[in-house]
Amino acid sequence: MSDPKNLIAGLDIGGTKLAVGVTDLYGRTVAERRQPSDVKRGPDAVVADTISMIHATVREAGGSKGNLAFLGVACPGPLSQKRGVVLSTPNMPGWENYPLIERLHCEFECPTVLENDANAACLGEALFGAGLGHRFVAYFTISTGIGGGFVQDGRVLHGVDGNACEFGHQIIVPFDGAICGCGCAGHLEAYANGKSIIRRAVEAMERGQKSSVMDFVQDGSPLTTRELAEAARSGDALAKSIWDETGDYLSIGIVNVVQNFNPSVVVLGGGITNVGDLLFEPTRRHVDRRIMPDYKGTFTIEPADLGDQVGVMGAIGLALPHGILKKAAA
Amino acid sequence: MSDPKNLIAGLDIGGTKLAVGVTDLYGRTVAERRQPSDVKRGPDAVVADTISMIHATVREAGGSKGNLAFLGVACPGPLSQKRGVVLSTPNMPGWENYPLIERLHCEFECPTVLENDANAACLGEALFGAGLGHRFVAYFTISTGIGGGFVQDGRVLHGVDGNACEFGHQIIVPFDGAICGCGCAGHLEAYANGKSIIRRAVEAMERGQKSSVMDFVQDGSPLTTRELAEAARSGDALAKSIWDETGDYLSIGIVNVVQNFNPSVVVLGGGITNVGDLLFEPTRRHVDRRIMPDYKGTFTIEPADLGDQVGVMGAIGLALPHGILKKAAA
Repeated sequence: MSDPKNLIAGLDIGGTKLAVGVTDLYGRTVAERRQPSDVKRGPDAVVADTISMIHATVREAGGSKGNLAFLGVACPGPLSQKRGVVLSTPNMPGWENYPLIERLHCEFECPTVLENDANAACLGEALFGAGLGHRFVAYFTISTGIGGGFVQDGRVLHGVDGNACEFGHQIIVPFDGAICGCGCAGHLEAYANGKSIIRRAVEAMERGQKSSVMDFVQDGSPLTTRELAEAARSGDALAKSIWDETGDYLSIGIVNVVQNFNPSVVVLGGGITNVGDLLFEPTRRHVDRRIMPDYKGTFTIEPADLGDQVGVMGAIGLALPHGILKKAAA
Repeated sequence: MSDPKNLIAGLDIGGTKLAVGVTDLYGRTVAERRQPSDVKRGPDAVVADTISMIHATVREAGGSKGNLAFLGVACPGPLSQKRGVVLSTPNMPGWENYPLIERLHCEFECPTVLENDANAACLGEALFGAGLGHRFVAYFTISTGIGGGFVQDGRVLHGVDGNACEFGHQIIVPFDGAICGCGCAGHLEAYANGKSIIRRAVEAMERGQKSSVMDFVQDGSPLTTRELAEAARSGDALAKSIWDETGDYLSIGIVNVVQNFNPSVVVLGGGITNVGDLLFEPTRRHVDRRIMPDYKGTFTIEPADLGDQVGVMGAIGLALPHGILKKAAA
């Protein structure tokens, strides 16, 4: 008699950490494990680490690999979901055209699905986090970059090449816009990712605006959004205006996404959102000011709920369209 | 023995005309009919007209109402697709909360589905027009207003309230933007619908730019996009620059839609697109300049193909998710 297929594994591969979660068929976590990733060692070594981690986590969950009904994998893109291949990852050299899913499937012999990290995070929040109970969920992740996702009825919207929902690369300043990391001009990411927020603060000080922001920075260290938040909380006018402006830039992207996708909830996650109301208050206020009347009251803007579990839970959620994950955990 | 269910009817209700088409189960048109609509007479009278038209068209197709497998209806919104109710239509007074589908269903006793006109047009082009053969189709209609739609695998993307894809109301000029018909500022529609194109031309002439545009207008008539197109074709520099600028504004909306939805084709329809290359050339050029490198070559921008049949064919296409329409006609 073969083992009961009663466990789902989710793997989250990041530039700085690896995380594995094992759940039952209802998405309830039984065991989890995380460790730093040393991507410089190349994909084969990292994948060997993830294989050990998955075996150990499944054992901790009281099972063995024969119990795995599904393995979901979240990874930075761009990637080919269909072929299960990582095409390139700017922060993970050597991963070009790497057949990630084939390697994992050889080891675990269960259905294995790849998804890019922003889409996986959207799915995780939609099924298990701030989007729980919503059929239509839009998600922004705001940190080093700005990414996004849209989930309808537990399924990620992909488009023809899996490149839908590049919310950070919406054009929000069409003429003479700041240059984005991608090389194009005027994108949301060029105004509201961590680096851009700092750039706008520094530019304002260079223009002669008075501020106590630099009092919060240790000598020799660069200004970060953490100190910019501390300064704003202590009442610094410039710091407060930078966070207000950040909320306004974000509001343009959010309004366009709401009017394009008509979600009932917009979830904001990623490191920058840890500043909390400093960002959420102006964002909500400017969205309210900018949104078409027809959409007022049809959606809310919520902080992400899963923290650093979001990638693993999104990977678990990939089992839903396969009929393996029974429903979202309450 | 009951009649074979071998015909599909599509009804297109507009502010100025009514159109009915009857096809076989493969979407091949067997008979069609159109007449002016006199919406001032109120919804009951108009619906009585449409009922007569549908009966007549079905008879012309060699059938009777017993042969109808499906009736699809395209109508200006906003509306509730679920309840089959027209909520309000700015150009059709008296239609507020009108139970359109109930009325039609009582008469024809077959599955009857309502869709707003822009979504229906997108579906029509996706299944039978310029999007034929594409799984992911984005559509812009550019005329009095600017509307949009997105179709994936023959299904319209609706969002939670059926209000997805308001492409004309994307914010493209976030600060000090022109006021849109909806009351908000900086929307695409406020720069690229018929009225806005004319406004920008008139403003440029008022600023003192020399132009022969008014030589193309009959005394006492207002300037329209038709004369602006004639002037541009005759070499008028200002008229040409207005069309170029229109293409640039449109390109912002198109780039954002492509990066949000990742379609393989963007179809542009509506009255303004009849000017042809005057609009398509600058639009394609500015999109090419603005789009992220990853998306280059992944999509094309095509003129709509169905002309004034697009509403009827979209209404016919609503039968696809019901398993009634067998496949798109070639």
